[in-house]
Amino acid sequence: MADLKQLFEGRIKGRVVYGSDIDKKYLTDFVGSHVGFADAYVLVSDEEDVKTVLEIAYTNKIPVVVRGAGTNLSGCTIPEGGIVLDVSSMNRILELDEENLTVTVEPGVILRDLIEFVEKRGYLYAPDPAEKGASIGGNVSTNAGGMRAVKYGVTRNYVLALDLYKIDGTKVHLGASTYKFSAGLNLQQLIVGSEGTLGVITKIVLKLLPMPEYTLNTVIAFDSLKTGIKNVNVIFKAHLDPTAIEFVEKKVIAYGEQYLNKQFPCQSAKSYLIVTLDGDKSSVLDRYQRLKSVVLSNGAIEVISLENEAIAKDVWEIRGAIARAVNASGPWEPIDIVVPLKAITDFVEYVNYLTENGYPRIVAFGHAGDGNVHLCVLKDSIDDKLWPDILKNTMEKLYKKAYQLGGVASGEHGIGKDKREFFLQNTNEEYRALMTGIKKSFDEYNLLNPHNGYAN
Amino acid sequence: MADLKQLFEGRIKGRVVYGSDIDKKYLTDFVGSHVGFADAYVLVSDEEDVKTVLEIAYTNKIPVVVRGAGTNLSGCTIPEGGIVLDVSSMNRILELDEENLTVTVEPGVILRDLIEFVEKRGYLYAPDPAEKGASIGGNVSTNAGGMRAVKYGVTRNYVLALDLYKIDGTKVHLGASTYKFSAGLNLQQLIVGSEGTLGVITKIVLKLLPMPEYTLNTVIAFDSLKTGIKNVNVIFKAHLDPTAIEFVEKKVIAYGEQYLNKQFPCQSAKSYLIVTLDGDKSSVLDRYQRLKSVVLSNGAIEVISLENEAIAKDVWEIRGAIARAVNASGPWEPIDIVVPLKAITDFVEYVNYLTENGYPRIVAFGHAGDGNVHLCVLKDSIDDKLWPDILKNTMEKLYKKAYQLGGVASGEHGIGKDKREFFLQNTNEEYRALMTGIKKSFDEYNLLNPHNGYAN
Ligand SMILES: Cc1cc2nc3c(=O)[nH]c(=O)nc-3n(C[C@H](O)[C@H](O)[C@H](O)COP(=O)(O)OP(=O)(O)OC[C@H]3O[C@@H](n4cnc5c(N)ncnc54)[C@H](O)[C@@H]3O)c2cc1C
Ligand SMILES: Cc1cc2nc3c(=O)[nH]c(=O)nc-3n(C[C@H](O)[C@H](O)[C@H](O)COP(=O)(O)OP(=O)(O)OC[C@H]3O[C@@H](n4cnc5c(N)ncnc54)[C@H](O)[C@@H]3O)c2cc1C
Repeated sequence: MADLKQLFEGRIKGRVVYGSDIDKKYLTDFVGSHVGFADAYVLVSDEEDVKTVLEIAYTNKIPVVVRGAGTNLSGCTIPEGGIVLDVSSMNRILELDEENLTVTVEPGVILRDLIEFVEKRGYLYAPDPAEKGASIGGNVSTNAGGMRAVKYGVTRNYVLALDLYKIDGTKVHLGASTYKFSAGLNLQQLIVGSEGTLGVITKIVLKLLPMPEYTLNTVIAFDSLKTGIKNVNVIFKAHLDPTAIEFVEKKVIAYGEQYLNKQFPCQSAKSYLIVTLDGDKSSVLDRYQRLKSVVLSNGAIEVISLENEAIAKDVWEIRGAIARAVNASGPWEPIDIVVPLKAITDFVEYVNYLTENGYPRIVAFGHAGDGNVHLCVLKDSIDDKLWPDILKNTMEKLYKKAYQLGGVASGEHGIGKDKREFFLQNTNEEYRALMTGIKKSFDEYNLLNPHNGYAN
Repeated sequence: MADLKQLFEGRIKGRVVYGSDIDKKYLTDFVGSHVGFADAYVLVSDEEDVKTVLEIAYTNKIPVVVRGAGTNLSGCTIPEGGIVLDVSSMNRILELDEENLTVTVEPGVILRDLIEFVEKRGYLYAPDPAEKGASIGGNVSTNAGGMRAVKYGVTRNYVLALDLYKIDGTKVHLGASTYKFSAGLNLQQLIVGSEGTLGVITKIVLKLLPMPEYTLNTVIAFDSLKTGIKNVNVIFKAHLDPTAIEFVEKKVIAYGEQYLNKQFPCQSAKSYLIVTLDGDKSSVLDRYQRLKSVVLSNGAIEVISLENEAIAKDVWEIRGAIARAVNASGPWEPIDIVVPLKAITDFVEYVNYLTENGYPRIVAFGHAGDGNVHLCVLKDSIDDKLWPDILKNTMEKLYKKAYQLGGVASGEHGIGKDKREFFLQNTNEEYRALMTGIKKSFDEYNLLNPHNGYAN
């Protein structure tokens, strides 16, 4: 490899760190169970830096891994040599256009900061990935989803335009600040979810909505998972316009309850749906009454409104504690399968079946309203030496089942390095060939995030 | 060129017509002002036919133009030799999945038939292009929009998965029947709006919504276009959740009035917004009251509810007659520019300025809620010999202005052949190179719809 120190010397305004001096946290993802290595870490300070780094990489055929906030759960940002290009310092909110209802940001803007900025001014940035410390560039690159996807869709639906630097350092502006677009191939949509494999995003135009007037959360208790999931369809068809529909089994809630020593409402339940409604207040309250009556006549045991602040506090605390309980149990692997709505029960029952038959403990919960099932596969006391094999075997089974049910490997986290093997196993050759062809047309030497997703 | 008769002989189940025997209507678009020529027209009857035609075309390097219902307004389906591949006979609705809220169709299904099929069962297919005789494959290939885009988005937002035959006859399944998708490059989204340049779509999985309970249309009268357009933003910010916001100037309405000898409400107005609200009835009625009060305090002269059936009938008749009045005036050119919301007034004022200063008469109306401005450039009595030059000059000016204002050449009709020149004039080299690169990776000899959009 070329001497990067020599190549970068005096040409980069941002911070550059080399080889073993690079902080480990820049060589991994959120999970941190795999740490990579790199020859140089560059915290770019502006577009010019991005261009310089890419030109040097391209000329010298050096791989580049792009990094936002590093909160991904799929090994997206684990380099194997070459350069880590960190855009997190490019974090300015450039323009709020209140007439066009758009906001223009640099990629490093943190989701939390964007939300705060727009909400203060009465706007909603509709996608709501749970990790508010992620960057918008990362959200765009993974097509991040969230609970509100049921009503508002995912990040993809809010990206109108973006600036992209290709690996050779050329810049291209894709899309327009318009609400419709049928002018040539929609490359801005191709970039969304491409996990940094096609270029470095340096600017993004996002669509905003006016803030809904009122939001109401409710917990609905059921005697089985099946009845709970069946009610998702019931809720859709009852014209209730739900914003979010989450499901969680009682046995999973129990992890949170134990962790906090608190109780979730309706202890006799086996599963819950958490349903959010938003809009103008009178409509929300009216729909809440209809929601109550329709689910109660379709097998629900109890409907608990979270208007009561004390109950609401407990519910969110216990729910939030599930992740911490999982984390506290030791190493775990995040899975983000998505299946057609009608297959959720089958999939979760299969997960339970594995766990009951000698496979590792698996905690399942997720977005019932869009079929996005999150699994945490827990190592618990399984021997370190056996774990990799057991985990791999479990993953193979889970992904295979998801595809059999018409699902895919990831609903919102992306493929990264961790799911690549399973994604490729379940993806036909023709589709892979198309992806590789496109990758080649953007990045002929496979230098950008070369280990992510389909790229190889 | 190879002898197509010999190549097709006994291999195609559908109908094949050669050379001068081909009906002219299969060699043009909806406008019909340009008629192309082809060596063979094949009305395929199934996927096997599609595969056979493509394999023959590929092996013999023969261009192929794909055709749905032929209602496009941009010269998308005007061949210059080679094969016209017509999928309109592949028109079965294959599956309605009421648990997953999806419908699977063949590409030739006519929009009107799909709407009737799903509405009868209580579902909404949310995109609503005005031309109900278009095919779903055509809608997907142009990313067709419509009035309801403001609330529900465009065709793109409802395409979950599709089957595509590449020019070499290989079939690939893209996407999944899931509501979320972050598993590799999203190629199903790349195909949407690609105007038949990347492959032949043979199957489509679309997302459905439950039918809204109640829909209300209103006409709002203003003393100027500017005040009308300003109110679009007012309506958005008042949490009224509009389904559609259309604008039309009084002088344009006058074409329809004259044509039918009827009167539109509020004759003193200079411009109108037509606003649609939908949802549960009590919420719609409540929002209607708020709509009324908010626009009246922002410059509206009058708000007319179309609950009154007699008024509603006149309004829709007059509005519908504008297109017929335009058609009756002689040759005209459709333009489908989209600009950021805040630029609508500037753009329409520029159009009026041209017309008042020696340029052809131009009728402007459109989707105020998403910036999609439809223009009809009328030939009127301009001399046949001068018309092509005058039209070209006018188009150049209009497209240039649209791009200057941050817009693009097409919001929903696509580029086709007619706008290619102006699209390319206003599209930078880097973006064109990316599109060409992708085209090459799907279709290295540029055989599929080789004259459409960016392809060349
Ligand atoms: C507790 C927790 C909860 C989470 N909840 C959700 C959730 O609800 N929904 C969801 O979708 N995800 C969720 N995630 C996952 C993660 O937050 C998202 O994937 C997020 O989008 C990653 O953003 P990031 O800035 O951290 O990107 P990174 O982790 O830095 O990178 C992610 C990918 O994007 C690429 N990338 C980043 N910036 C750019 C750029 N400017 N140009 C090109 N490529 C770039 C990287 O190369 C990498 O491939 C969660 C994570 C955690 C830890
Ligand atoms: C009166 C009128 C009103 C209209 N209103 C609207 C409107 O409101 N919104 C709007 O968006 N459009 C509108 N249009 C334009 C037109 O109806 C749309 O562009 C429509 O999507 C075209 O569908 P089609 O089946 O007629 O396609 P065609 O005209 O046959 O083809 C259009 C393009 O799609 C390609 N194509 C068709 N089928 C396939 C396939 N199976 N695989 C691959 N490529 C394929 C063709 O090659 C071509 O490039 C209107 C047209 C008319 C005449």
